[in-house]
Amino acid sequence: MSRQLFSEIVRILVRYKDCEERRTTIRVTVELHCASNPVYKKDLIVRLTDDIDPLFLYNLIITEDDFQSLKHQQGLLIDFSAFPQKFIDLLQQCIQEESKDVPRFLLQLVSSAPLFDYTPAYLNVVETNPFKHLNHLSLKLLHGTDVEIKKYLASCLKCIKDEKLLLEQQLKKIKEDFTRQLACTQK
Amino acid sequence: MSRQLFSEIVRILVRYKDCEERRTTIRVTVELHCASNPVYKKDLIVRLTDDIDPLFLYNLIITEDDFQSLKHQQGLLIDFSAFPQKFIDLLQQCIQEESKDVPRFLLQLVSSAPLFDYTPAYLNVVETNPFKHLNHLSLKLLHGTDVEIKKYLASCLKCIKDEKLLLEQQLKKIKEDFTRQLACTQK
Repeated sequence: MSRQLFSEIVRILVRYKDCEERRTTIRVTVELHCASNPVYKKDLIVRLTDDIDPLFLYNLIITEDDFQSLKHQQGLLIDFSAFPQKFIDLLQQCIQEESKDVPRFLLQLVSSAPLFDYTPAYLNVVETNPFKHLNHLSLKLLHGTDVEIKKYLASCLKCIKDEKLLLEQQLKKIKEDFTRQLACTQK
Repeated sequence: MSRQLFSEIVRILVRYKDCEERRTTIRVTVELHCASNPVYKKDLIVRLTDDIDPLFLYNLIITEDDFQSLKHQQGLLIDFSAFPQKFIDLLQQCIQEESKDVPRFLLQLVSSAPLFDYTPAYLNVVETNPFKHLNHLSLKLLHGTDVEIKKYLASCLKCIKDEKLLLEQQLKKIKEDFTRQLACTQK
């Protein structure tokens, strides 16, 4: 079972090797997957996608075990259960600062490889104060494999087909309603 | 440049290794790709997809050279330029016979491997007369690779997003039109 906690378009600074850094927008999705078998276990999924470029996909799965090493490595003081909301709060802070010329909180995607290479990239939440850049969090994301992108696109296609069907039904209904209403009024 | 000549849902008999044969429907698309560089050259693309299962994809690209061996191998009497229309005529004959209990023309997809294996499958147009099964045409199709399926799904997603946008615009316009018309009538 999976529960979506966050799915928003966020402005981001992208820095690839040998490329000029650029500001763009990206969809960040945060999901919690709960497996009840064999033991009750939760995984946090972070996914970066681009509504314009369907082949852009970065993934990260954080298990409770992974989180312990992330916690240790980055000096976090919270538990796994509190982490998703804290991460979302940081993303919200980035969104709130988007319109400012010098945003205090900024999301960055940094890769040591050139664009479109399948190497990992780091998603950083960086606070800039007058003194320095403070890295609040740094998550290592993997570029989606062809199989992962294929599955992701298939699920997008299913969603959008359902939405399209709903629109078609709405359009049909509204045409009927208005035609009836108009006929009544003209009588 | 590519030109779509045919894209229809056709009933088909599917026979995989170790599986009971089953009747289902499949979308058959026939396209002509024209490359003007380096020499004027045409390729015929045959694609099998399933509107329900987005991961189902079989492809065949027939170049003019490929066609010569196909012509020789299957004893065809037509040229490459006449082949696409002849193939579409055969597909149309299958469609016309669909509703009959014993269709005279039938499309078959036959694979010597179990379902979902990535081995080639044969798309056959078979006529059944009181005496025997006559194979009019047999095309060897390859299952799409993950990269091909990924690209195919990305293009589907783009199309359906455009269609959805159009529907949203229609819905908005029809609401405005009817509201205006209703207001006029009620005056």
